[in-house]
Amino acid sequence: MLTDSLKAHWPVRRLPDVAHLDAGSSGWGFFLCTRKELRTGRSGAPYLHVVLQDRSGTVAGRLLEDVDRFKDEFEVGEFVRAQGRADRHNQRVEMVLESIRRINPDQDRAEGFREADYVRAAPRPADEMWQELQRLTAGIENQDVRRIVEAIVTKYEDRLRVWPAAVTVHHDYRSGLLEHLLQVADVCARLADVYGADKSYLVAGAILHDIGKVEELDYELATSYSLEGNLLGHITIGVRMVNEAAAGLGDVPRDVVARLAHLILSHHGTRDHGSPVEPMTAEAFILSAADDLDATLHQVRRHVSEGSGDSRFTAYHSRLGRVLLKPSGR
Amino acid sequence: MLTDSLKAHWPVRRLPDVAHLDAGSSGWGFFLCTRKELRTGRSGAPYLHVVLQDRSGTVAGRLLEDVDRFKDEFEVGEFVRAQGRADRHNQRVEMVLESIRRINPDQDRAEGFREADYVRAAPRPADEMWQELQRLTAGIENQDVRRIVEAIVTKYEDRLRVWPAAVTVHHDYRSGLLEHLLQVADVCARLADVYGADKSYLVAGAILHDIGKVEELDYELATSYSLEGNLLGHITIGVRMVNEAAAGLGDVPRDVVARLAHLILSHHGTRDHGSPVEPMTAEAFILSAADDLDATLHQVRRHVSEGSGDSRFTAYHSRLGRVLLKPSGR
Amino acid sequence: MLTDSLKAHWPVRRLPDVAHLDAGSSGWGFFLCTRKELRTGRSGAPYLHVVLQDRSGTVAGRLLEDVDRFKDEFEVGEFVRAQGRADRHNQRVEMVLESIRRINPDQDRAEGFREADYVRAAPRPADEMWQELQRLTAGIENQDVRRIVEAIVTKYEDRLRVWPAAVTVHHDYRSGLLEHLLQVADVCARLADVYGADKSYLVAGAILHDIGKVEELDYELATSYSLEGNLLGHITIGVRMVNEAAAGLGDVPRDVVARLAHLILSHHGTRDHGSPVEPMTAEAFILSAADDLDATLHQVRRHVSEGSGDSRFTAYHSRLGRVLLKPSGR
Amino acid sequence: MLTDSLKAHWPVRRLPDVAHLDAGSSGWGFFLCTRKELRTGRSGAPYLHVVLQDRSGTVAGRLLEDVDRFKDEFEVGEFVRAQGRADRHNQRVEMVLESIRRINPDQDRAEGFREADYVRAAPRPADEMWQELQRLTAGIENQDVRRIVEAIVTKYEDRLRVWPAAVTVHHDYRSGLLEHLLQVADVCARLADVYGADKSYLVAGAILHDIGKVEELDYELATSYSLEGNLLGHITIGVRMVNEAAAGLGDVPRDVVARLAHLILSHHGTRDHGSPVEPMTAEAFILSAADDLDATLHQVRRHVSEGSGDSRFTAYHSRLGRVLLKPSGR
Amino acid sequence: MLTDSLKAHWPVRRLPDVAHLDAGSSGWGFFLCTRKELRTGRSGAPYLHVVLQDRSGTVAGRLLEDVDRFKDEFEVGEFVRAQGRADRHNQRVEMVLESIRRINPDQDRAEGFREADYVRAAPRPADEMWQELQRLTAGIENQDVRRIVEAIVTKYEDRLRVWPAAVTVHHDYRSGLLEHLLQVADVCARLADVYGADKSYLVAGAILHDIGKVEELDYELATSYSLEGNLLGHITIGVRMVNEAAAGLGDVPRDVVARLAHLILSHHGTRDHGSPVEPMTAEAFILSAADDLDATLHQVRRHVSEGSGDSRFTAYHSRLGRVLLKPSGR
Amino acid sequence: MLTDSLKAHWPVRRLPDVAHLDAGSSGWGFFLCTRKELRTGRSGAPYLHVVLQDRSGTVAGRLLEDVDRFKDEFEVGEFVRAQGRADRHNQRVEMVLESIRRINPDQDRAEGFREADYVRAAPRPADEMWQELQRLTAGIENQDVRRIVEAIVTKYEDRLRVWPAAVTVHHDYRSGLLEHLLQVADVCARLADVYGADKSYLVAGAILHDIGKVEELDYELATSYSLEGNLLGHITIGVRMVNEAAAGLGDVPRDVVARLAHLILSHHGTRDHGSPVEPMTAEAFILSAADDLDATLHQVRRHVSEGSGDSRFTAYHSRLGRVLLKPSGR
Repeated sequence: MLTDSLKAHWPVRRLPDVAHLDAGSSGWGFFLCTRKELRTGRSGAPYLHVVLQDRSGTVAGRLLEDVDRFKDEFEVGEFVRAQGRADRHNQRVEMVLESIRRINPDQDRAEGFREADYVRAAPRPADEMWQELQRLTAGIENQDVRRIVEAIVTKYEDRLRVWPAAVTVHHDYRSGLLEHLLQVADVCARLADVYGADKSYLVAGAILHDIGKVEELDYELATSYSLEGNLLGHITIGVRMVNEAAAGLGDVPRDVVARLAHLILSHHGTRDHGSPVEPMTAEAFILSAADDLDATLHQVRRHVSEGSGDSRFTAYHSRLGRVLLKPSGR
Repeated sequence: MLTDSLKAHWPVRRLPDVAHLDAGSSGWGFFLCTRKELRTGRSGAPYLHVVLQDRSGTVAGRLLEDVDRFKDEFEVGEFVRAQGRADRHNQRVEMVLESIRRINPDQDRAEGFREADYVRAAPRPADEMWQELQRLTAGIENQDVRRIVEAIVTKYEDRLRVWPAAVTVHHDYRSGLLEHLLQVADVCARLADVYGADKSYLVAGAILHDIGKVEELDYELATSYSLEGNLLGHITIGVRMVNEAAAGLGDVPRDVVARLAHLILSHHGTRDHGSPVEPMTAEAFILSAADDLDATLHQVRRHVSEGSGDSRFTAYHSRLGRVLLKPSGR
Repeated sequence: MLTDSLKAHWPVRRLPDVAHLDAGSSGWGFFLCTRKELRTGRSGAPYLHVVLQDRSGTVAGRLLEDVDRFKDEFEVGEFVRAQGRADRHNQRVEMVLESIRRINPDQDRAEGFREADYVRAAPRPADEMWQELQRLTAGIENQDVRRIVEAIVTKYEDRLRVWPAAVTVHHDYRSGLLEHLLQVADVCARLADVYGADKSYLVAGAILHDIGKVEELDYELATSYSLEGNLLGHITIGVRMVNEAAAGLGDVPRDVVARLAHLILSHHGTRDHGSPVEPMTAEAFILSAADDLDATLHQVRRHVSEGSGDSRFTAYHSRLGRVLLKPSGR
Repeated sequence: MLTDSLKAHWPVRRLPDVAHLDAGSSGWGFFLCTRKELRTGRSGAPYLHVVLQDRSGTVAGRLLEDVDRFKDEFEVGEFVRAQGRADRHNQRVEMVLESIRRINPDQDRAEGFREADYVRAAPRPADEMWQELQRLTAGIENQDVRRIVEAIVTKYEDRLRVWPAAVTVHHDYRSGLLEHLLQVADVCARLADVYGADKSYLVAGAILHDIGKVEELDYELATSYSLEGNLLGHITIGVRMVNEAAAGLGDVPRDVVARLAHLILSHHGTRDHGSPVEPMTAEAFILSAADDLDATLHQVRRHVSEGSGDSRFTAYHSRLGRVLLKPSGR
Repeated sequence: MLTDSLKAHWPVRRLPDVAHLDAGSSGWGFFLCTRKELRTGRSGAPYLHVVLQDRSGTVAGRLLEDVDRFKDEFEVGEFVRAQGRADRHNQRVEMVLESIRRINPDQDRAEGFREADYVRAAPRPADEMWQELQRLTAGIENQDVRRIVEAIVTKYEDRLRVWPAAVTVHHDYRSGLLEHLLQVADVCARLADVYGADKSYLVAGAILHDIGKVEELDYELATSYSLEGNLLGHITIGVRMVNEAAAGLGDVPRDVVARLAHLILSHHGTRDHGSPVEPMTAEAFILSAADDLDATLHQVRRHVSEGSGDSRFTAYHSRLGRVLLKPSGR
Repeated sequence: MLTDSLKAHWPVRRLPDVAHLDAGSSGWGFFLCTRKELRTGRSGAPYLHVVLQDRSGTVAGRLLEDVDRFKDEFEVGEFVRAQGRADRHNQRVEMVLESIRRINPDQDRAEGFREADYVRAAPRPADEMWQELQRLTAGIENQDVRRIVEAIVTKYEDRLRVWPAAVTVHHDYRSGLLEHLLQVADVCARLADVYGADKSYLVAGAILHDIGKVEELDYELATSYSLEGNLLGHITIGVRMVNEAAAGLGDVPRDVVARLAHLILSHHGTRDHGSPVEPMTAEAFILSAADDLDATLHQVRRHVSEGSGDSRFTAYHSRLGRVLLKPSGR
């Protein structure tokens, strides 16, 4: 139970953003609620478990008192105003909530509420990234290749602008897919220069390698796998999009289609990682290396940026299977 | 050099079929020539290396004398009449050839030459297998599933009737693909009964799981990988065929297409074996087990049947990584 | 603490069976108690942790109040009458118990208590399965093989009728071993027809492959590993049983014993999965595939049947390493 | 909350040592506090989480009441007097603490407090082990080898006397490194006799194989990885120490240095276990086997000794991936 | 063809033993012929391929001329007198033979022929090793354990005295099994002292761990796998021998039998290496490590001793996957 | 035997370079002889086996006649003039030699002999590459890092200019190490821009990652492993060079040394590939990816360039485990 003496310590100031919450932070803030469950505590009493999010990250919260009153004041997927205190539990920061309710736009905008602040998204604006993608596509020299890329990018523009690249792991936020493919394309273009590889195929491969994710994943404010995503996977869906684009254009040589499809199919590098065929061209080797490196570095940087404390090393990263050295001077 | 005394020992009787050649066999026979190379022996002298085939198997041969005369008397891919003696070299039977020339149909038919005897093929007649496939297809209860299978089977009938299932390993001969898919369908239908699985999808999956092989492989009298076969693989090609058939029919629910594609994609059982997604339905688990068992047993039986000698065990099978027990009483 | 207002909401109706419990279910029921521990809650107060079971499944329960009174009212392994409310905790249903006591047979039978309803068991009656096993055994053509199987099956009848096939994973309930071996024998007999394999050995191998489990596992109402089970494993125990049966019969050819033992030894398919030798006969390959498929499909069906909610896919199955597609229309 | 009636049950007798604590033990004891955290319970109330240690083991404890009063009465790394009751939670024994404060040496020595009783350490006295190491080193026949070992052992004497061999897993306590290297040297010397291997190199390798750990690990009363420990690892650090010692001596043949470095580099046996080169001499094979066996047996014995209960087998050992048979008669 | 001028260079002196043959060695010697095949050379001419052996090793030989005359002068498995010249072919020494015939005992003994010189055997006399085994067995303290070992060792004495430990790899010669088990027992006894393990079980395990090899392998002058060897493997055969010995004694506690069987079953260390169960006792871990080390060091020493040339390193050892450093000064 | 009629066909024109030899090429040429062995043919006659090399590649040759005369006319490691004819044997081109003798510089220079033409070397001139390395080093911003790189590069200049990067696999020719490190540095610098990584460390890591190879390998005109190369490996040697350079400079912070050493240690990416520690910084991940990609692409390009024939795909590349698609239009 939250004692009155504790409550008395909660000033009603504004909470810092989620990334800066720490044990002792208290006050109120605006968030997107991405999970809401009525649970029973070990003591048998019900409480509300929620996950709250802003652009900087996510935090779990528990509302222990007046559950009946607050449980109908908001739904999952809504923006909320919540008040409470942050604690550290098993080395993770959690919120103990005093109150929570959905946003009242008129009133809350006055206090600075702006939807975009509570949706995790790529650091660069989607419009800017979209224009870069347009330029990249237009710059593909091989006409057959460019026409296929243009057809696909145009068809899926709405999704490409906002889709995440994954449910978790890396680039798992609004426009993360676009951010990832531009980064991979940038790396591929530079490596094409070093190794004299075919830049048309490499840039096209970079743009299209994960394109199947716009159908593999369902994304509204949360991300999940679609039926076809689970049963087929983004690699197979991406190849189907290339086949359909080529069929729509009508006159693309089969070799061009096969080489593009090969880049998509082999971009995980090995069968073990889900590529049914493995790289057979210099371009495929480069694309696969660039994709793997970009995904890995995204995890490295996030893990480093999320760490806290004075240690020179981060906490153990279970997916990478090691601790990481924090960059000095950052 | 072949001494005259040796030649004198060669009677001009008919050779046994390839499977029954052994050291000491001598005489003449008809064959399909599937390889022909001019090589240089360790002594510096040129010789002809050939591979000869009849329905029962293949044998390598060397023609050491009169190379200049015989080397233009036939080409690879032609039926030939060859004369010589069999020897055992490093435990393998090889032919030392005295003469070789292409078939003269008019004259050689009189001696019993018949093309079909020299092409390795499935044990059952293609027509009989084709009719069984027709019956199987017609018996698929789920209408959407049946229409897709019919469309594909009809479109690729010419190839399906004669295609091998592989370059090597198993069912690597004329109509081997048809033989394999019927066997897998038989197993799947029986297992569907035991486990109450969806027989429409299971039989369709059995028929279509390797359908991409009709484009993955090029087959005339020899078998090799096509450009798309190498770059995409039969799994991805097979899924494309399902997508095209569904597009052609126009009104097939996406779920049906996804479930059929899932059966094709997952039929190798694990990513490690080249399936980009792994079985997620009872039907996919059954199909994958049936396919694997059929391919394994084909290798087991061939290896057992090809072995010779009195030992209770076969020679080491390098792909399976073990020796096999010969069935007693066979 | 359970507040009085909450208690007031608990009607004293009969609880649904375990498989149908969900958050909000409340009332009383009969169960088998398979675990009972006195634990200390985070708050420092002791509580009773129990696991309750009926034929449809198992559920954990906590009794938080009057612990001293109830803790001597029943023991693990006894049938009990318990009353309380179901909650959902971390996505699992749990019971918060109000009271629990051992069955009073005279009185409780009047309310419908019947032991068999609270022991998880194979779906088919043991007697029916036992008769099927008798028929199967009698139908083995090879006399030497049949006599060994008969000797073993007769000797271990008592255990074979009731033993589970595993502590967890698959067929882990009363008569689960009998259910599993009959299913595997059914599959093996069908595959023997398809592949012309030796049905005597295949059916015998199916019956005997897991026979060592009757000594590997101790089973009363709970299942655990015996000393020999841990130190030797069921494969080695099963081979010992074949050796003993052959010694008892006196005149069985060594080859027959060796071939039967080979089927048991190799039925896990690879050394990696615990088979000290790997399949060397068509029969051994078939048995190993049938056993693996049966165990896998048992897990698939259980996982699908236990899932709830509207999603087309189940929750992640950690042993299989994937989600599963729920069959449509079921 | 701890009720008064419960408190009344706590006699103020002396607690048994940590290894003998079980549910129901209560009283007071001296400990080393190796962890101290202010946490928030599920109910929202703060509590102190501590880890207490004596020579026999470690136990977690929670202080739930009067947190404000006790939280400043001691710090992590200090010796403390604590009073409370042991419970079993999820099969592990934990303490619920009533009070805790730092040692008052004058007063507490009277009750038998002695620092050494609360620091986990190797079973043999460090001095005795150090003298054994001196004898071992002096007994190395090959002069070049002996001089390198002497130089290193002398330089790092302070650390060698007290360092643990690991953060966890095996020999993870005061002087554990010394204990481990003497044991490995003992085994190596005996195996050198059996196999006629070069005892100078083998004993030197045994002494030096883990020497890098004195810089890989930081150790005060707790153990952790140093910056160089993480970035380089003890194998590379150990090779550097050999290089530096050889450079200091000036006239050691390069071959000797290379063979010693090879023993250190290859002592994990395979690249997979972190050895950049694998054993290439009989001595390197023996050292690697001896090191592995010693580390494994240390885990086996600890796990067996820590187990309780009547079962013939221990609980599952997750690192070894199995249960262990308890020695009979112990 | 062997020219006359070459023949003239062959003096008729005695050849060195096989281990010392090198390009240029010529003369005659006595051997055991362990392989004899009539092959056809690349030039079409038949030649005799033989493998000749003395205690120091084996060498392949080719007889190119007068094949008809010599081919009936000896059979495989006979001792022979052969004359010829050694050459180096693909870095291996081979013999080009001039003549070969079976031994004429009366006449050839005069020239020093003695059967034992041409059979590869363990370096120590079998009688001496047998007596050591007797002493070892008699010294086992645990009576039940000793009686089982005595029963088995007595029953299989004839084979134990002469059996090889393997077809190839290590200890693959007369009495190699006895040599190996004594060595492993020696190591185990020493490690039992270091680790306070149960010496009765350890020594018994060392003696019995490979006992199944006396039935797994057929051995006359050559070694091959028996039917049961292939189908069951020596581990399972060894356990059967323990079971039979215990049944014969009648009153051995089941625990003793199970612990001995566990040592045999787990001595390959991991399932991956063919142990159906993995070590669960300190004794099993020690036995498995000792067996592995002994087998590895046998390969290391043989490879080092067989190498020639000035290099500090041996040729690549394909089974160990590396080159080995030659001991200096040897 | 080489018949006179064949010899008559050999015109005495100049042979093409090795890369352009094909069956039928005949004439004379200059080469470096990198292997020379006296072997015995299957027929029993001795012949000379040689390997001849020019900048474009290597070719094996056999001299079958007048062996006694020619065998003393040249030694391995000398430049030679050889005459003969090329044949294709088992799909590889080999030379049948008529004559071979060492170069007579005075006379042969007149015919165009120039040493550099017969040594395989990197495509760019060593001087040009060396200057690029100097510029790269000078451009490292972090002073401590730059001083270490300068010290090492300066110390090993002689070797760095000419050393190969490997015995086989990739960059296995004169100045191949320099070519490889510049390429990797180029890639790393570009990726540092994309990912905002620390360019000083990345470029230094690229220059130093394989520096240990100048002592791991012995290189004159052939390449082989040194004693330390085998026992320690280039990774450990490279770290020692960094330690020595830092010790020589005296005032480099330990952190800088540790971070540089970490880049070298982790550059194989995983322990499995020989890195005792795995990447823990963004720079280490990038370096490891760049190194792996450069080595792979070198193999890809060589394999593609060495292939011949009309096929769209290369022959199977056993190290990469696949065929490769030839770039179209090349």
